[in-house]
Amino acid sequence: MVQIPNTPPSASPAPRSVPTSADVARLAGVSRATVSYVLNNTSAVRISEPTRRRVHEAARELGYVPHAAARSLRAGHSRMVLMPAPAIPIGPLYGRFINELQWALGRLDYTVVQYGTVAVQGDEAARAWAELRPVAVIVPGAGLGPQGVTVLKRSGARAVVTLGPASVEGAHTLLMDQAAVGHAAAAHLHSRGRRRIGVVVPEEAGLETFSRPRLDGARDALRGTGAAITELPLAYTEEAAARLAARWGDLGLDAVFTYNDEYAMLLMSALQDTGVRIPEDTAVIGADDLMLGRLLRPRLSTVHIELPSGRDLAALVDRAVRNPGAAPETHRVLGASVVPREST
Amino acid sequence: MVQIPNTPPSASPAPRSVPTSADVARLAGVSRATVSYVLNNTSAVRISEPTRRRVHEAARELGYVPHAAARSLRAGHSRMVLMPAPAIPIGPLYGRFINELQWALGRLDYTVVQYGTVAVQGDEAARAWAELRPVAVIVPGAGLGPQGVTVLKRSGARAVVTLGPASVEGAHTLLMDQAAVGHAAAAHLHSRGRRRIGVVVPEEAGLETFSRPRLDGARDALRGTGAAITELPLAYTEEAAARLAARWGDLGLDAVFTYNDEYAMLLMSALQDTGVRIPEDTAVIGADDLMLGRLLRPRLSTVHIELPSGRDLAALVDRAVRNPGAAPETHRVLGASVVPREST
Repeated sequence: MVQIPNTPPSASPAPRSVPTSADVARLAGVSRATVSYVLNNTSAVRISEPTRRRVHEAARELGYVPHAAARSLRAGHSRMVLMPAPAIPIGPLYGRFINELQWALGRLDYTVVQYGTVAVQGDEAARAWAELRPVAVIVPGAGLGPQGVTVLKRSGARAVVTLGPASVEGAHTLLMDQAAVGHAAAAHLHSRGRRRIGVVVPEEAGLETFSRPRLDGARDALRGTGAAITELPLAYTEEAAARLAARWGDLGLDAVFTYNDEYAMLLMSALQDTGVRIPEDTAVIGADDLMLGRLLRPRLSTVHIELPSGRDLAALVDRAVRNPGAAPETHRVLGASVVPREST
Repeated sequence: MVQIPNTPPSASPAPRSVPTSADVARLAGVSRATVSYVLNNTSAVRISEPTRRRVHEAARELGYVPHAAARSLRAGHSRMVLMPAPAIPIGPLYGRFINELQWALGRLDYTVVQYGTVAVQGDEAARAWAELRPVAVIVPGAGLGPQGVTVLKRSGARAVVTLGPASVEGAHTLLMDQAAVGHAAAAHLHSRGRRRIGVVVPEEAGLETFSRPRLDGARDALRGTGAAITELPLAYTEEAAARLAARWGDLGLDAVFTYNDEYAMLLMSALQDTGVRIPEDTAVIGADDLMLGRLLRPRLSTVHIELPSGRDLAALVDRAVRNPGAAPETHRVLGASVVPREST
């Protein structure tokens, strides 16, 4: 790690005082109420154009910025939509979804903040989120329970939306059924005549939420077909992949679903190093439809995953905020379709 | 895109009122001040254990959560550290850095929020951030100017830290000199006897902040050596890479620095498809030292980039918050070292 040297603190002078709306009112020669009307663009009150200009000029001169917290205390609610920041690095697919969601919520005049929840999880995290008094909370992944939803609602959140494998009492739910991904992959391998199918299960912490249902979905797809599934735990390291490849002959597999495209690249590289021919000896299919799959040789077959549109989710949030008493909605939103290429 | 159906809103009932500390005080039979002392863990005031317990029980029963905003209004500042959420999907390297930073700030009792700034940028964004009254702001990348720093400080931010190519007046700066990355790559290629060196410059928006200084650094490294640099604009698509590979012979290059490892994979795949031998005909070096570089054949040489430790940055933020009057610190924090493998 690059070190940042520790500079010894000198005596701390008092910080300059923060300008308030009272300061703006004094400088502009108007009342605090007028400052508030002008800066919050209230249309209920008629204020002359010169007065408006005077207030804006005074605010600029003093460097006054309205206090979102004070405003939300007055209004009883904020325009803040809170999401926990993802604890695992996010892929390009999810990154695009989040960007689109932020953009769409921004257009509806919401502010999106991602809350850095590193230490706490689930219902305990909900309490920390509630302290910021968000008007809506969007929670990807499992973890938040009915208690967490209650805490958030009691503290003023008008909408709680979860994105995950199961619906949560009291919350709107976008059901993202990861089992569909494994189902599509296994059904494709079966249609290609493969009968002894390995399924990679990453050993990295935090991925179980995705990998378990994908494995279950693959099992489901093959139930009653006579084809067999072999679970293959695998860490994301070259050494682990080389060890798995070294015993590939003993495993007697004719196909493998590698959890995602990155694990596909890891395993394909190791298998090719040991002389396994793809797809002749072993068919390989990934998931996520990343660019890198198209750059591999043979080109990687994959499961394309369709996330909900950020715009639709933003509209759901807005609808729920406007109508907090409505019954929670549950929508199935994850699409999974096979993109066959050369590796299967 | 998967569609979320639009449910027509029914008549909206009034939202349940949010419990306040007054409600807790009434239920516990104590004063509001006592509730505040107990829930904020104030040690200045002695409160008996039974009273403490009564307050906690009442808060739990009512589902009361303290209001961070109200607390920060009283205290004059928050414990919130704000960072703009990255507009481009972040790689695993930066993702790890952010996670470590959030964890380290959490240990110091700060709350990290990433602000979704999609539409606004630079000093205009600073005004939006200021509305949340963060006690510190960390801004990766270029964009924030001295005006933005002033707005943030006037609204109560005690520390503004920028991470970027140049220092910003009034802010602490972690200088991340991307030129060092290009310099290391070009010097390595030169040491391998290469003299006609291409440098890939991604066409994707938002990457100029990184790609321009990397190109400049490469030029710098070769100044006076007689070796020549050819700039290679490239979009991150198979088609663009195939077009570039098709005219590779005409370019007469014996080496290429591909901006990063992902562009290296893109270009290597296209070059290998057209029969260019790596490294015999063309040496290839990437940057970022991603896992995928080790999985390519030949294995990819790369520039390993060392980011500052999240723990050191958290300590700098905390130091600055405690001592807001201290002179801004500037530290050079980006390390770049070549990892030679088979492709050069």
